[in-house]
Amino acid sequence: MSADPISQLKAALGDAKVLTATDKIQDRRHDYWVVSHIRDRLGAQGPAPACVVRPATVADVQTVVKIATATGVPLIPFGLGSGVVGGVITSPNAILLDIGAMNATRSIDPENLLATFDAGKNGLEAEQEVAALGLTTGHWPQSIAVSSVGGWVATRASGQFSTAYGNIEDLIYSIEAVLPDGSLVTLGKAPRASAGPDLRHILMGSEGTLGVITGVTLSLRRAAEKQAVSAFAAPDMRTGFTFQRELVQRGWQPPVMRQYDVRESKRLHEAAKDCTVIMVHEGPAALVDVERAAAFELAASMGLTALPDTIVTHWLGHRNHVAGWDEILSRNIVADTVEISASWDKIAGIYDSATASVAQMPGCRAASAHSSHVYRSGLNLYFTFAIQKDSPEELEAAYFEAWKRIMTATADGGGSMSHHHGIGRVRREYMIRELGPEGASLLRTLKGALDPKGVMNPGVLIPDA
Amino acid sequence: MSADPISQLKAALGDAKVLTATDKIQDRRHDYWVVSHIRDRLGAQGPAPACVVRPATVADVQTVVKIATATGVPLIPFGLGSGVVGGVITSPNAILLDIGAMNATRSIDPENLLATFDAGKNGLEAEQEVAALGLTTGHWPQSIAVSSVGGWVATRASGQFSTAYGNIEDLIYSIEAVLPDGSLVTLGKAPRASAGPDLRHILMGSEGTLGVITGVTLSLRRAAEKQAVSAFAAPDMRTGFTFQRELVQRGWQPPVMRQYDVRESKRLHEAAKDCTVIMVHEGPAALVDVERAAAFELAASMGLTALPDTIVTHWLGHRNHVAGWDEILSRNIVADTVEISASWDKIAGIYDSATASVAQMPGCRAASAHSSHVYRSGLNLYFTFAIQKDSPEELEAAYFEAWKRIMTATADGGGSMSHHHGIGRVRREYMIRELGPEGASLLRTLKGALDPKGVMNPGVLIPDA
Repeated sequence: MSADPISQLKAALGDAKVLTATDKIQDRRHDYWVVSHIRDRLGAQGPAPACVVRPATVADVQTVVKIATATGVPLIPFGLGSGVVGGVITSPNAILLDIGAMNATRSIDPENLLATFDAGKNGLEAEQEVAALGLTTGHWPQSIAVSSVGGWVATRASGQFSTAYGNIEDLIYSIEAVLPDGSLVTLGKAPRASAGPDLRHILMGSEGTLGVITGVTLSLRRAAEKQAVSAFAAPDMRTGFTFQRELVQRGWQPPVMRQYDVRESKRLHEAAKDCTVIMVHEGPAALVDVERAAAFELAASMGLTALPDTIVTHWLGHRNHVAGWDEILSRNIVADTVEISASWDKIAGIYDSATASVAQMPGCRAASAHSSHVYRSGLNLYFTFAIQKDSPEELEAAYFEAWKRIMTATADGGGSMSHHHGIGRVRREYMIRELGPEGASLLRTLKGALDPKGVMNPGVLIPDA
Repeated sequence: MSADPISQLKAALGDAKVLTATDKIQDRRHDYWVVSHIRDRLGAQGPAPACVVRPATVADVQTVVKIATATGVPLIPFGLGSGVVGGVITSPNAILLDIGAMNATRSIDPENLLATFDAGKNGLEAEQEVAALGLTTGHWPQSIAVSSVGGWVATRASGQFSTAYGNIEDLIYSIEAVLPDGSLVTLGKAPRASAGPDLRHILMGSEGTLGVITGVTLSLRRAAEKQAVSAFAAPDMRTGFTFQRELVQRGWQPPVMRQYDVRESKRLHEAAKDCTVIMVHEGPAALVDVERAAAFELAASMGLTALPDTIVTHWLGHRNHVAGWDEILSRNIVADTVEISASWDKIAGIYDSATASVAQMPGCRAASAHSSHVYRSGLNLYFTFAIQKDSPEELEAAYFEAWKRIMTATADGGGSMSHHHGIGRVRREYMIRELGPEGASLLRTLKGALDPKGVMNPGVLIPDA
């Protein structure tokens, strides 16, 4: 007869890596999803896991995964806890696998522009280490100081400089992961391969449901020779979208290209009466100069007016500041951001319908959006909502109602319901609309094949049949 | 009791779509793999399939796939037959699914730069249709006139302009496919999503083993405002590689960047005594001008000398001409190209060892290489070999020996064994080295989950356990 999972874990890893003290397991009940914080403030804390395991090595992770699969106990991977869609909620019998102690930089290779990190490596520390060698990951999610490199992969993250540098899938060279059967795979060994399905894409965005990412090699960039900025006022969102589309479709690729509606523009610069488009240009100096000139020329031809560079430099300096949930929730306000994407012809309609729908909610204090990631065929929108209620007990329902309105407006408008935060729990019910019933079935088939016992992060991502 | 598969197919689709006449089925015994042509010339023709089915609609494809799966009969998808790695070899009981009649252009959308094609659409016709609207797919495989859009996806193809425009995975917006259970999926509905694993990547490169691609939406580009070229002589391959690496790592992205060793340079321009690097620059005129100037400046600083533009313009005009197999085989010569990729620090070693190893083969008439796809972290190599033997009976063994030498040199040197032709049959035995035993097992798990009866293109891609 096998011992209980905790005894097995302690026997295999030693007591020090298997934490069961109340404070340790209480600390790892959830991530940064606002719903978990609402519940905490109401004293409706979710359950703590049975234990928190902090592996030190890849072999440790394999041991934990094998024990979870053998005993059928839920296993919940945890990076640095910055997720905002409910990807981490524990149950009393679950093993919480905290990767945070696996945070080494394994190698930095300036010749090939490659750097390999343990999955638990803090994103900002990773960036600072490569920056010391004149390099950059090119990946700047707003969460960079509180998110992990492995988390970027598991959630299919995007950074603020994605329009030129790409999203995480464009930066990954290889992924090391432990599959639910305990086997260790290292996928990716060259800049490009045509060797069957790209299996790295099974792990990217898997949110802990198909394996545990233990290491990541990123394809870096050299630090840009020059950075410059530009900013323009557009009379309305549609004009701004057309400007962005025209610039990108002409063949320019400023790493940062963002467009704020009037409401959000006022946060960028108080005097704003129009929409605002800001850009950061980076690269060889000669390229930056001609790109910035082209942006000004196009803007002038379309009737957009130039704004001071200081709007952009101020954004660059403050872009990762976000208010803590407690500060907001204490005023009986629930707020969140919701990122979606769509083709150019659909984006303005989704903007209109989603913001209008949320604005109709009782207690709505804000319903706004900006775009932040641009492609040849479309772009994303990043909605912000804030709903004020009379009591904290009403916040959760208001939250899900606002999400429902944005998800529905997006799906009805023909967009994709998630640009880069992932699915977690909040979007899971909408996955059928995203993938279609047959696509959702394919995802379930994949899950069933890799994790037949369903131990890996149950309740997340994979839609019910 | 169900009828035999051919009777079922005829009953479901009508006789006209189910061909069993000798000439029709003989025509579809194989693709453009040279080994099949060697066997043909020896009178050792491989078997014809039981029938050739030419579906007209996606529903037809679903019908065929359901019948194959229900009866357990091998189903072999066939695009336009340009594959060169043995992806199509039929067996007497197989259904050959010829997609060539599904060749419609479903839509072209200049606003969103999207075009949707049936999978059997001829690549050059697709390009010409979008070109008529001032657009381009940006995808220029050498096979463009004889390959299909669906085949590009199934083999994970690359085009000659990939260094700036990306490979097929960077151009795909959505994929429509029939899975082995007969279900129809349409994957991809926006420029980018973070909604679980990117299931499109299961179909890209699946070579008919995981489903039948029926439709593809590509994210297009506008035709470039300006095109310019440049060419340089480098004293040796390592200097050329360093030049290419430096240019790309500084942030420049010429769509075409190719480097030929001395032997291949002589085919570009007879007087060649050095390696040759050629580039095509495309984009907004101002960008093309500064990029080309940067290339000349860097070349001069590294001691590379400029060559006449005409070398590149001649290449542009003749780049898709290849000698037919019969012309070569009739001289008792077997020749082929083998594309691999590796990081910058590994590529020169692989070049040296692979060409030296092939050159040692008795009867070797050519062992050379050029690079043609460049990335921040490395690049590809495209080996060419030609082996002359005394009799046609000796060619097949010489072929596999040359492949073995290049595959082994690549794997030993740390590269990936396929850049863009795919795996088919010739590379299948090397997949364990490519993915590792655990990665290969993951691929088999995927295959077993989607195609439990193993009807889809058996013998291709998926390595044996």
